[in-house]
Amino acid sequence: MNIRALQTAVPSAGPPLPERYGAVRTLTLDLCRTLTPEDMALQSIPDASPAKWHLAHTSWFFEQFVLGPHAEGYKPFHPDYAYLFNSYYQSVGEMHPRPARGLLSRPSVADVRAYREHVDGHMQALLAARASEPTLVNLVTLGLNHEQQHQELLLMDIKHLFSLNPLKPAWRELPPLPASHAPAVKYLPRPAGQVNIGHGTTGFAFDNETPRHGTLLTAHAIASRPVNYGEYRDFIRDGGYRRPELWLSDGWVACQRENWQRPLYWDEDMATEFTLGGMQTIVDTSPVCHLSWYEADAYARWAGARLPTEAEWESLAAAEAITGNFLESGLFRPTAGEGLRLFGDVWEWTSSPYTPYPGFKPLGGSLGEYNGKFMANQFVLRGGACVTPASHIRASYRNFFYPQQRWQFGGLRLARDN
Amino acid sequence: MNIRALQTAVPSAGPPLPERYGAVRTLTLDLCRTLTPEDMALQSIPDASPAKWHLAHTSWFFEQFVLGPHAEGYKPFHPDYAYLFNSYYQSVGEMHPRPARGLLSRPSVADVRAYREHVDGHMQALLAARASEPTLVNLVTLGLNHEQQHQELLLMDIKHLFSLNPLKPAWRELPPLPASHAPAVKYLPRPAGQVNIGHGTTGFAFDNETPRHGTLLTAHAIASRPVNYGEYRDFIRDGGYRRPELWLSDGWVACQRENWQRPLYWDEDMATEFTLGGMQTIVDTSPVCHLSWYEADAYARWAGARLPTEAEWESLAAAEAITGNFLESGLFRPTAGEGLRLFGDVWEWTSSPYTPYPGFKPLGGSLGEYNGKFMANQFVLRGGACVTPASHIRASYRNFFYPQQRWQFGGLRLARDN
Amino acid sequence: MNIRALQTAVPSAGPPLPERYGAVRTLTLDLCRTLTPEDMALQSIPDASPAKWHLAHTSWFFEQFVLGPHAEGYKPFHPDYAYLFNSYYQSVGEMHPRPARGLLSRPSVADVRAYREHVDGHMQALLAARASEPTLVNLVTLGLNHEQQHQELLLMDIKHLFSLNPLKPAWRELPPLPASHAPAVKYLPRPAGQVNIGHGTTGFAFDNETPRHGTLLTAHAIASRPVNYGEYRDFIRDGGYRRPELWLSDGWVACQRENWQRPLYWDEDMATEFTLGGMQTIVDTSPVCHLSWYEADAYARWAGARLPTEAEWESLAAAEAITGNFLESGLFRPTAGEGLRLFGDVWEWTSSPYTPYPGFKPLGGSLGEYNGKFMANQFVLRGGACVTPASHIRASYRNFFYPQQRWQFGGLRLARDN
Amino acid sequence: MNIRALQTAVPSAGPPLPERYGAVRTLTLDLCRTLTPEDMALQSIPDASPAKWHLAHTSWFFEQFVLGPHAEGYKPFHPDYAYLFNSYYQSVGEMHPRPARGLLSRPSVADVRAYREHVDGHMQALLAARASEPTLVNLVTLGLNHEQQHQELLLMDIKHLFSLNPLKPAWRELPPLPASHAPAVKYLPRPAGQVNIGHGTTGFAFDNETPRHGTLLTAHAIASRPVNYGEYRDFIRDGGYRRPELWLSDGWVACQRENWQRPLYWDEDMATEFTLGGMQTIVDTSPVCHLSWYEADAYARWAGARLPTEAEWESLAAAEAITGNFLESGLFRPTAGEGLRLFGDVWEWTSSPYTPYPGFKPLGGSLGEYNGKFMANQFVLRGGACVTPASHIRASYRNFFYPQQRWQFGGLRLARDN
Repeated sequence: MNIRALQTAVPSAGPPLPERYGAVRTLTLDLCRTLTPEDMALQSIPDASPAKWHLAHTSWFFEQFVLGPHAEGYKPFHPDYAYLFNSYYQSVGEMHPRPARGLLSRPSVADVRAYREHVDGHMQALLAARASEPTLVNLVTLGLNHEQQHQELLLMDIKHLFSLNPLKPAWRELPPLPASHAPAVKYLPRPAGQVNIGHGTTGFAFDNETPRHGTLLTAHAIASRPVNYGEYRDFIRDGGYRRPELWLSDGWVACQRENWQRPLYWDEDMATEFTLGGMQTIVDTSPVCHLSWYEADAYARWAGARLPTEAEWESLAAAEAITGNFLESGLFRPTAGEGLRLFGDVWEWTSSPYTPYPGFKPLGGSLGEYNGKFMANQFVLRGGACVTPASHIRASYRNFFYPQQRWQFGGLRLARDN
Repeated sequence: MNIRALQTAVPSAGPPLPERYGAVRTLTLDLCRTLTPEDMALQSIPDASPAKWHLAHTSWFFEQFVLGPHAEGYKPFHPDYAYLFNSYYQSVGEMHPRPARGLLSRPSVADVRAYREHVDGHMQALLAARASEPTLVNLVTLGLNHEQQHQELLLMDIKHLFSLNPLKPAWRELPPLPASHAPAVKYLPRPAGQVNIGHGTTGFAFDNETPRHGTLLTAHAIASRPVNYGEYRDFIRDGGYRRPELWLSDGWVACQRENWQRPLYWDEDMATEFTLGGMQTIVDTSPVCHLSWYEADAYARWAGARLPTEAEWESLAAAEAITGNFLESGLFRPTAGEGLRLFGDVWEWTSSPYTPYPGFKPLGGSLGEYNGKFMANQFVLRGGACVTPASHIRASYRNFFYPQQRWQFGGLRLARDN
Repeated sequence: MNIRALQTAVPSAGPPLPERYGAVRTLTLDLCRTLTPEDMALQSIPDASPAKWHLAHTSWFFEQFVLGPHAEGYKPFHPDYAYLFNSYYQSVGEMHPRPARGLLSRPSVADVRAYREHVDGHMQALLAARASEPTLVNLVTLGLNHEQQHQELLLMDIKHLFSLNPLKPAWRELPPLPASHAPAVKYLPRPAGQVNIGHGTTGFAFDNETPRHGTLLTAHAIASRPVNYGEYRDFIRDGGYRRPELWLSDGWVACQRENWQRPLYWDEDMATEFTLGGMQTIVDTSPVCHLSWYEADAYARWAGARLPTEAEWESLAAAEAITGNFLESGLFRPTAGEGLRLFGDVWEWTSSPYTPYPGFKPLGGSLGEYNGKFMANQFVLRGGACVTPASHIRASYRNFFYPQQRWQFGGLRLARDN
Repeated sequence: MNIRALQTAVPSAGPPLPERYGAVRTLTLDLCRTLTPEDMALQSIPDASPAKWHLAHTSWFFEQFVLGPHAEGYKPFHPDYAYLFNSYYQSVGEMHPRPARGLLSRPSVADVRAYREHVDGHMQALLAARASEPTLVNLVTLGLNHEQQHQELLLMDIKHLFSLNPLKPAWRELPPLPASHAPAVKYLPRPAGQVNIGHGTTGFAFDNETPRHGTLLTAHAIASRPVNYGEYRDFIRDGGYRRPELWLSDGWVACQRENWQRPLYWDEDMATEFTLGGMQTIVDTSPVCHLSWYEADAYARWAGARLPTEAEWESLAAAEAITGNFLESGLFRPTAGEGLRLFGDVWEWTSSPYTPYPGFKPLGGSLGEYNGKFMANQFVLRGGACVTPASHIRASYRNFFYPQQRWQFGGLRLARDN
């Protein structure tokens, strides 16, 4: 999920925009409530960012794309912040290198909080006066969706940082998982034929979800729930991490180079794992999580199945209500339950490389500069996870990561040719 | 082109099998006629192999998959050769690591030639007796197609090795390019609709070309010839290698890391380039060659166009005769001319990631072990090049390389949404 | 200066031990007075450590080697701190990897301060009761010298971290440099003959300074002051960083690999440099600082001179009073002045590899475990710097760094054969 | 042994210069007699060079430094060879990068042999006419010593290359080792006092052996023979490669990084090893060989001893006859026997970093350009090995390698403080 921010037409449902703005911005701070200044300054891998940086970058986004062009007389909070907190918008100027974000002890967390307050004050004033202007609605909606992506990243990054600490700190005390029923997997048969996927005309979406277009499905069947911990453990016990014939060539190279022997965050004992609530007992019926695409692909091959395509996934999901175990559940880890569970719990890896839809057109201007910037070498994930805000997800939502990445909440669901 | 060898049903047209066997095997040796033992022992990059290794590996293929299982009482020529000359068939045993192929001064070129003669003797005896057995026909046809792939690799690898030598040796004296006409580019309009691509039931194909299946095209237009050197030079002069907005994010990283400033083999003067005939003057009307996918993609963006999908390419090519500037022309470099020139000259990068076709099934046994082994992180190229044997190519042929690789003869043709 | 802790007999002069203990421990905290929790948690390079880690490790040293064995009933403050804050004493157990010190957001700065208070309370109680026991005197004196080394490291590490921050923060507002006189360099002639170097029997020393032993000097001359900024700039302007003939082979490789073009912390403008007080104008008469050994060696060759041996340096310094620009001056950067200035300002690189003195014997036990552990590949520096506590330095003091390291306050003085 | 070529005054003993020239040059070719062109073209590690390169470089040396300046009207054999076969004499021009020597299939072995013949013809003509001119005597003597160094390097490099080949080829069939007596080790006591070391005024020496100078020894004892295979195996069995307390810090890092578990070329079975005669049974009484300095140092610490200094070694060796198991023995591997065996068998690591002797002065001109170029980070070895020409060795001879290098024939002898 390299944060890219893209939009189409808006009239978004739900509460009024100023209220939505306040709610999203408040949630970001609330996610940091248990973090110390030291926690918020560190960067554990180049892919991750310090929590402090997320707080600042999401504020910079509103300053750069909303306040600067639209709030008359607005002056940036600090002349260096555009350099420090730009992520990759090359058309708006030079930027601090991503792997060096963890070297910035200054500005402090307190400075960054003051920056947020400054931006929020100006944004609320702007929204109070002009909340119905379509351009502003579009830009602010985009900024809020962008911030929601960073809420998830913030949790992913903190989890990774804490996992490396021998003290194994908990981000929060988490409630116990609900008593979970583990339904047997069924394969839902689905016929061959043409379907339409991609975002239509109503409501917000990122531009990588467009245009809506037809595609052909072959006859297939798709599993009624994601693969769970217990099933994945069988793969491990059957030598899954030692058998090259189960892996793609690049996957086997990664497995050997990184010395993978189990999913990220599992303890050697295979009975406990690191979570946002510290070390916890693995619940076998919960969807397995923190797999790379290579591991998901190898598991599917071992199971005599395959990953679904994104078109297969989306055409199934389009008819489902968007409910599930999202960030708002407060569980912050996947869990089992009734129903298809296409949404929430874990992002589901698909077999689809992340490529432009036919006829895809980047937007103009800086916000569109990088629309397709990441459309090589990554794979699509669908459905959102237990750290994703519920209001952020759609059936057409396309998330993407490199096949070797594991710190996102990635799991899988099986499919088969019929 | 990680050599993978896969097949479907055969009854191949053309000359009788023993004759074809002799012709293909003889050509391989003929390609080595100007090479010294030292030339044949060196490996310039891990992606390449010594010429000597190609000679031995293609013989091992017949020994392993034809003579061993089918020639009664056959004994391997040397007990260590299976280890030394296996490429990646993990199910038939351990193998010598690919990057270390250039550390094998023994067996010598003379030893390897003796190995070839031994295998050829046994193969001709087998074919004389049983050339009509379908299993043998299938396996031998596969082995010959496999060897043709290595003929092209051998030329790619020698060109790379020689390019690093300050003496800039020529592999052969090459004939001058024919006086070339440079037709203006036209864009051929093509309607939206469903087409079928992939290999059907007649004749040999690799299994990654199957199954034949329907796919939807959107309305588009495709260029009437590949991009040429002169056009590509305009891109360079317009700052193409210094403007990040033209590149995908991963492409820009590769460009910076490798310090790309022009296609592989171009001299700094931009007027000459290294060829299999040594340093030669660049002919501006010839198709540009030795581009990575990232460069092809950046060029297309700069030109306000895009790469074609493999379905667009194949559905156009299916109606064309398979003629063009192949290995048999003796030019060993691309050249301009009349017609669409979809075949020969340069492999044409497509926008399509190399993935399994819907319903793709790997064959059983070792030969099928790795059918899908490389189906991640690579992109498809189509049409064959000036170093490809003509009889090796089909409209449905899928070649594939990583987006950063440049030593294959890769060029591009533009396309546009209509 | 890989902190190694070694001692010989003690009866140390100066104030009573409990008072010295309090003074040293208070100074460490005082050096952190302007630092935020974020400043204290970050690690900019594997060679450096977070300020917080220095605070904790120096406390762990007293806990491990004094309180644990000698304070009856003492219980460690936290069961995991021995693992987290051990530096390299392998005989006392496993340790957290050095390059990962910057991944520890917990324990927090507040936790580490509480740890210090806990240790200080127990130490003061122990010293109040038993301050005259020789074993305790020896161990505590060693612990205080160890802590003084970390005081200097803490300043080196903070300077490095802040230098990478685009905001270029100042650790402290520093007083202006005193008006400085720049005496011309003279070469002091020194005759051939036998001298004794190394630590004798009175007072504290690290064991790498022992045994005192004879060595032969050849006739030579040594410069009356260190090389200064202005002189070094002449070397740069004369192409010093572009002329391989001035460098040792390994030095030239390092220079090219790291793209050195001037001393660490100099700005491109060659007129300003980063200091503990932020960006400041370079004062040409001040001793040049932050040179690697390779640069010092190349400069000397360019100047038609050489570095002094450590025996030449020590035999000259032995007669001098140990006064100079040390940490206590409050300048925190080198400055010019009268006299030989052998002590303070900058550590002076010598031509001597860091090797054991003849007859060197490691002490028994964990404290002696690593006495000679670093006696390969490093070079000796002498005299202390503007960030070294004055009471820490002796004429026989041997500091050592790798020839490519630059973040220590390293400069040079020239010598010549006579 | 980075080949550096340096000289002092000459009048060399032995046969007339033209005869010596012929003998040395012929031996080099003879060492290649069993090698194929492929063997001679490959480079197994950046430290090594292809045999072909050694043949050419040693010829270039005579062309560059003798024929060019002194043979009237001499024209270089080929205009590109100065670039290709210069090793590191930066003052005579640009050079081909060392790690890319193995990419030069051209010039061929045949070309290089023709080059040698050309140079030899001109050299013999020059020597026939002017063999008594002191300048020529000096230069040619230097060139022959330089070539002898490359004779040893050639054997080291071929051994390394062949060791990586799964066929484990023998360079030559070697005679069996003589029945060897294994005398018990005695420690020879040696008193404290001043000794002189370094080369005096008679005969050829490299300039790093000068000037002769006084140095102080402390009382010590030195072993009567090198450590042998059986003794070293005891170290391994006692956990020598698993106990960090036996190693210097840098040595332990190297041991872990390279996964050292036994000397280079030993088989896992610890009973056989790879030699220039292929795999052979280890003879326990033979001096142990192919140790890095770190391993030698760790062994000595384990044995309660230390390595001798180079002054201790040289002052003992100065009284010994220079006889032993050198290249001329035809054994090409170390063996046991009577006497001190200071010369031949294995190079003996000393504890002395390779540094300039007091008053060391580089020669003028290109030949002296790099006199001290390698005087950092390496350690001195003494005495020559079973692959060193006997006439090449002196008591004052200083060889040097990096402490992690193992492909040279390096062993050790123990010493102790008395």
